[in-house]
Amino acid sequence: MKQERDTVSKRNVIQAAIQLFNTKGYNGTSVRDIANKAGVNVSLISYYFDGKKGLAEFLMTTFLEGYVNELEKVHKMLEKKTAKACLVEALQTIMTYQHQNRQLARFVHREITFDSVLVREIMTTYLSKEKFYLSKIFEAGFSRKEFRPQSVDYVVMQLRGMLSMPFLQPQYILEVHHIQPNESYFIERYTKQLLQWVELYVCRELHVQKKPFVMNG
Amino acid sequence: MKQERDTVSKRNVIQAAIQLFNTKGYNGTSVRDIANKAGVNVSLISYYFDGKKGLAEFLMTTFLEGYVNELEKVHKMLEKKTAKACLVEALQTIMTYQHQNRQLARFVHREITFDSVLVREIMTTYLSKEKFYLSKIFEAGFSRKEFRPQSVDYVVMQLRGMLSMPFLQPQYILEVHHIQPNESYFIERYTKQLLQWVELYVCRELHVQKKPFVMNG
Repeated sequence: MKQERDTVSKRNVIQAAIQLFNTKGYNGTSVRDIANKAGVNVSLISYYFDGKKGLAEFLMTTFLEGYVNELEKVHKMLEKKTAKACLVEALQTIMTYQHQNRQLARFVHREITFDSVLVREIMTTYLSKEKFYLSKIFEAGFSRKEFRPQSVDYVVMQLRGMLSMPFLQPQYILEVHHIQPNESYFIERYTKQLLQWVELYVCRELHVQKKPFVMNG
Repeated sequence: MKQERDTVSKRNVIQAAIQLFNTKGYNGTSVRDIANKAGVNVSLISYYFDGKKGLAEFLMTTFLEGYVNELEKVHKMLEKKTAKACLVEALQTIMTYQHQNRQLARFVHREITFDSVLVREIMTTYLSKEKFYLSKIFEAGFSRKEFRPQSVDYVVMQLRGMLSMPFLQPQYILEVHHIQPNESYFIERYTKQLLQWVELYVCRELHVQKKPFVMNG
């Protein structure tokens, strides 16, 4: 019974923290705010997470560890599958994972835009791994002549911009495009957009022959 | 003399605020922090900007007004130029403008990921205009058969992700890719990546004929 109650209050704290961080920001949220919203005692947050900083760290590393694990699984497929199939799998997996953890994804993506020691540590631990796995997929695509040759760094950066956008900008999607960013439909549609990008932008046009362009031809 | 001194202290306040917002966040920064860093009296910030909220609002609207103005100019070219030329011009202009105001761009892009009344107002005022101008360029490209038909909403979202990435994530670019995000070289190279996207992803393959793909052919 006690253990069950502990799990519930731990989950409440996590949910309250994510929600508050996404409206008032990490720095604008106090431990007391989180405790009040979660309906727990402040000391419980110290006990479980070693305070607000520990809680934020827990949230970021939990999210990113799961994220990197998913990518690692895809990376292992490279031996058996084409680079294109792996890249498609990676994009779908990343979008699904982020969608399942969308409030957390939003917080993490925003938080890593700050300059801080914690962020720098997270970069070198998790985002360097992300870059490593994505790079391996692209490099396999280049060497197998599946992908059009280009800079790995720049294509990974471009891809990261596209992958984080729907989770960083739900308010923008809602207010400007009048689309519900939390609907599965939206995520499916946006993922299709990314797969088109793989098809037209990343893949080599091996089977395409250029003809001279004729105006009004 | 007094006017000159006023301009200097106003500029100092703006620079101090942007820098603090980018390290400690808007909510983690007090008016006193800004005044101390800028070397001015707190009352001056009240006098010039009506406090911290007014200052943040000033920064966001100043940045976005300039941004939207640049896009409006490009939009006017649609009568005389091809949609592709206008889209290329738009991307170059947006990248240059953001690079020139990169600290401010970072703050604004991050701030609009929050849920707040101010952000909602900014969305409907400025980002709806941005969407309007970009949509007009894409729609011209579709109707002139320059661009491959696709959903305007989704391509604009995808583009926004790519356009904001280098300014939202300078730390990531530095720590993970070991590239200096503030160098003009980086911006030029990243812009080239976007122009390739226009070429391969957005433009219709009018002058391309598909041949059946032959393995080891």
